[in-house]
Amino acid sequence: MGWVIWVDLSRMKYFKEPLRAELARAYVGGHGLGGRILFDETPRWVGAFDPLNPLVFVTGPVVGTQAPCAGRFTVVTKSPLTGYFGDANAGGYWGPELKFAGYDMIVVKGVASKPLYLYVGDDRVELRDASAYWGMDARSADRAIRSDLGDKAVRVACIGPAGENLVRFAGIMSDEAGRAAARCGVGAVMGFKKLKAIAVKGSLKVPVMSSELLAELSREIITRMMRDERVIYFGKAGTPGSFAALWEIGDVPSYNFRGGEYGGAGSPAVERVGYPGGYSEILANRKTCYVCSIACRRVISVRNGEFKIEEDVEGPEYETLAAFGPNCGITDIRAIAKLNDLCNLYGVDTISAGSTIAFAMECFEQGLLSKDDTGGVELTFGNAAAAIDLLEKICRREGLGAILAEGTRRAAASIGGGASRYAMHCKGQEIAMHDPRAFQSGGVHYACSPTGGRHTEGLTVFHEMNPPASSEIPYPKIASRSSIDGKAELAKLTEDWWAFTAAAGWCNFARFGYGSESTYLRVYAAVTGVELKISEALLIGERIFNLKRCFNFRHGCTKGEDTLPQRLLTEPGNAGNVVRLNEMLKEYYNLRGWDLQTGIPTQDKLSALDLSDLIDKLRLRG
Amino acid sequence: MGWVIWVDLSRMKYFKEPLRAELARAYVGGHGLGGRILFDETPRWVGAFDPLNPLVFVTGPVVGTQAPCAGRFTVVTKSPLTGYFGDANAGGYWGPELKFAGYDMIVVKGVASKPLYLYVGDDRVELRDASAYWGMDARSADRAIRSDLGDKAVRVACIGPAGENLVRFAGIMSDEAGRAAARCGVGAVMGFKKLKAIAVKGSLKVPVMSSELLAELSREIITRMMRDERVIYFGKAGTPGSFAALWEIGDVPSYNFRGGEYGGAGSPAVERVGYPGGYSEILANRKTCYVCSIACRRVISVRNGEFKIEEDVEGPEYETLAAFGPNCGITDIRAIAKLNDLCNLYGVDTISAGSTIAFAMECFEQGLLSKDDTGGVELTFGNAAAAIDLLEKICRREGLGAILAEGTRRAAASIGGGASRYAMHCKGQEIAMHDPRAFQSGGVHYACSPTGGRHTEGLTVFHEMNPPASSEIPYPKIASRSSIDGKAELAKLTEDWWAFTAAAGWCNFARFGYGSESTYLRVYAAVTGVELKISEALLIGERIFNLKRCFNFRHGCTKGEDTLPQRLLTEPGNAGNVVRLNEMLKEYYNLRGWDLQTGIPTQDKLSALDLSDLIDKLRLRG
Repeated sequence: MGWVIWVDLSRMKYFKEPLRAELARAYVGGHGLGGRILFDETPRWVGAFDPLNPLVFVTGPVVGTQAPCAGRFTVVTKSPLTGYFGDANAGGYWGPELKFAGYDMIVVKGVASKPLYLYVGDDRVELRDASAYWGMDARSADRAIRSDLGDKAVRVACIGPAGENLVRFAGIMSDEAGRAAARCGVGAVMGFKKLKAIAVKGSLKVPVMSSELLAELSREIITRMMRDERVIYFGKAGTPGSFAALWEIGDVPSYNFRGGEYGGAGSPAVERVGYPGGYSEILANRKTCYVCSIACRRVISVRNGEFKIEEDVEGPEYETLAAFGPNCGITDIRAIAKLNDLCNLYGVDTISAGSTIAFAMECFEQGLLSKDDTGGVELTFGNAAAAIDLLEKICRREGLGAILAEGTRRAAASIGGGASRYAMHCKGQEIAMHDPRAFQSGGVHYACSPTGGRHTEGLTVFHEMNPPASSEIPYPKIASRSSIDGKAELAKLTEDWWAFTAAAGWCNFARFGYGSESTYLRVYAAVTGVELKISEALLIGERIFNLKRCFNFRHGCTKGEDTLPQRLLTEPGNAGNVVRLNEMLKEYYNLRGWDLQTGIPTQDKLSALDLSDLIDKLRLRG
Repeated sequence: MGWVIWVDLSRMKYFKEPLRAELARAYVGGHGLGGRILFDETPRWVGAFDPLNPLVFVTGPVVGTQAPCAGRFTVVTKSPLTGYFGDANAGGYWGPELKFAGYDMIVVKGVASKPLYLYVGDDRVELRDASAYWGMDARSADRAIRSDLGDKAVRVACIGPAGENLVRFAGIMSDEAGRAAARCGVGAVMGFKKLKAIAVKGSLKVPVMSSELLAELSREIITRMMRDERVIYFGKAGTPGSFAALWEIGDVPSYNFRGGEYGGAGSPAVERVGYPGGYSEILANRKTCYVCSIACRRVISVRNGEFKIEEDVEGPEYETLAAFGPNCGITDIRAIAKLNDLCNLYGVDTISAGSTIAFAMECFEQGLLSKDDTGGVELTFGNAAAAIDLLEKICRREGLGAILAEGTRRAAASIGGGASRYAMHCKGQEIAMHDPRAFQSGGVHYACSPTGGRHTEGLTVFHEMNPPASSEIPYPKIASRSSIDGKAELAKLTEDWWAFTAAAGWCNFARFGYGSESTYLRVYAAVTGVELKISEALLIGERIFNLKRCFNFRHGCTKGEDTLPQRLLTEPGNAGNVVRLNEMLKEYYNLRGWDLQTGIPTQDKLSALDLSDLIDKLRLRG
């Protein structure tokens, strides 16, 4: 285990302490470890835009080791979008670099009086003037900081203008704006703190318990990956490779989740933007994160035309493709690639950005927004130029953009006239681009997700499409995607497992190579010396999931917010179904050990999860 | 009844509508009417610094009529200091002027993209550029706006630099920075909205139901006032006139409520700053608010020396005198006058400012703050120059000032090391300068005050000092100030009556002239045509008090926050007592009809108060 840096930007002070072993054992890392810090450091009266709101950068025990597909870092903070638990994570190289410098976690509190960045180079920790970088896009800032440091090998996590402008769904970018930790608006909190960047350079080796065993396991995993057809296809296709299959089952939302044929009747727009298809035409290369042989990162080239991008950049992931493609009705892959790049430069979450623009398009169509509001722009579905214009206005907070920069929940309240029916959010965060009407477990998952409608806290659509023949986790039998039988349990088990693996620092796609759950745990033991059974790992995941929920309830959440946008409960969408939420909810609460009246985890459940100390804090909400 | 203006700064739009009669009947005006708007317009996920947080300027039915001592306006918003219900009110001339223009209320939502001010001149409503006034102190801004409008008779309510800088206890100033609506940080919300000012000019007569009856009643009241010895003394002495008597009983806190002889052993500092005494030496004149023959406003002159003020300005009220005097240990009335004037110019609440500086002084004394933090200043009790320096830093958010600008609760959390024991707040707001250890009813009142430790929601110290021989309100018998018998009931009845009279627009000091409660109700009937019995007026007050509490609970408050700073419960202070809070709390809850487990008003109570519609919103906290 490494060290923790505590930074107070208000007092321009910092100190270091070793990570406490019992914290690491109970909460592992990522949203677990960072989440416990957030819970302990944040009284309920502290808001998201509040100097006291901690911004925690945290890796995980397996990050930076030889273990494949384990290079992620997580940012934890009280979310300005939801007002509840916020976290976001990203792959790439920043997380491992922090480990190389000897640190597991950086906790940033306070607010700087002028723009600063934090430099961490092994023992050296410095708060430096960032005035010169303030206002720069995320890619330029990344390059400028490294150039000024005279060390290209430094890794930078930074915000773009959207974070500076407190856009509530701003993210934190790394790898020259190629990777984004962007959900929950973590970049806006960084902007509020006037912290432009954290630049990291490390020269140490991450200590592991048994490096020989780890090497052997890693070889085994990589060998399996290299032979696995799914991995080979995934490497070729990236996340956009699943677009057509997901469209087929109605999982991909179109026209702000209203549904409808994408691109118009008989026009195969799915092919025009998906892979293979239109995406192949702009695909220039692949990229990889730290110690990953999958290489699902895309590099695209759009060097001319209306949507020209000056250099080859990272291409849209599936979420982005869906958010700006069918959900905004845009059918030109080059426009989608341009929107993706703008999101990366300004530093905003592509899911929330796409969903917010789709929301505005539907408001325009419904007459709730007029050309007066849009500055004369015809904000219709499919209008790529209008989407680009609006995205820039959002990131700069200009005109209508200032209202939309607040996210769909707040924007709907500002616009009024029933606009809230078009705001596709859970607890204030725009839901991910997997329509739960196509897989019922997704409905109860979105509704109860502590961070509101995520796809990285336990996405079950692939499981529902192709239930595994066997598994070490006792998943229930799945009759069909439209059935609700076993769906609450599927959601719960997936959430718990993902909560554990994410906390440890693994990428979701590690599963392609690791094959079985016990492989993860063998790697975990080789790295940490802690041998866990599957049930123990699930218990840790459950602890983390409940910790996040307890944070929410302490901060004012009630079970009334365990719900979905009305549209998903009443309109059939592309899947031709509605989510049967109420039927699943009670089963889910019982499985989770949550009080049916209040939605709060019972004292017995909290005791079983070693979270008894939260009980008093929940009661008094002090 | 008049009209309401709804302004959306984000969309630069406004509309007008007549005030709905049933709202006015149920909630009267002020914190009642504005409070109902706040409750309805503010989902729990909206923070204080949030474009959706409404900022409501509201007068009352008797304001602007011939009725004496009824010229107040109230500002209602979600408080950035407490995160709960926020209101502040002020006398002077701005409220009546708004009535003359035909309006009862202005509801401001959204946030402007650049500094604006609102001009209201009868039918004319305009949002105007305020860039030229941004950064100006409140007095200069007031004068500049009126000068630029070419109309000296315009009345301006505006913020100073503290509001612009989001100092959490910033206020809204009027009458050339002479009057302050400053509690709960309402000025910071105005600053967040980039609304520098509201300038008002009216030419209409406020319609009343029976002007003959009102004229007769007003003559009767004024005649009584002119003969009343208390009124004559109060006019001569102003609020500082009660300083010595309150000091005598231990009601005036010293040294951050730690207590101790003010000015040192044998040194009669009370005389050096009080009236008569030191205050007399700087007193230059008296001033009055709209239709008030008491004239308790002070004008002071400090035209030379270390604490020179360039012109004659309004002098410190009792609260300010106590906050900067004994509570900071400052014994020079000229220094206190200077601090008062700086608070007015920057636009901050003098109670919170004084309490925050006293808090910092105690932290310095205890070694929790060092010269490193203060920029080399010896921040000891009694150091007037240090207090002035720190006040300016707070208002400008410089150095340690940036931490203290967040109020004592947040500053204590930033400073750590147990500093929270020196933060003299309830629910995040610094308590007023009446030490409840000197009068037990004040303890339960502060603890349960919806806005946290106020002196204008029901101050019982004078009642406990001199219980009235008889009263139309069925007050309980008071054995002594140190006894708790009847104190819960005294607090409740006082709160309910004050809630009603404040909502109608009366000044607290109207009681000197009105004599009996039924006089208020006769005036109320003459103005509105609504005849109320005392019990009915108390019920309205109770409705408003509970509405404010329900807002708090919807926004995450729990009964755990019905408490006092530990010091008041464990240390004797100047009164030689502690507050016996727990003993009073249960009785108070029962009298109020609040659930003993949760602290939430019972359904029966809410039904009795015609607040049944809040029940669902409380349950779901949607």
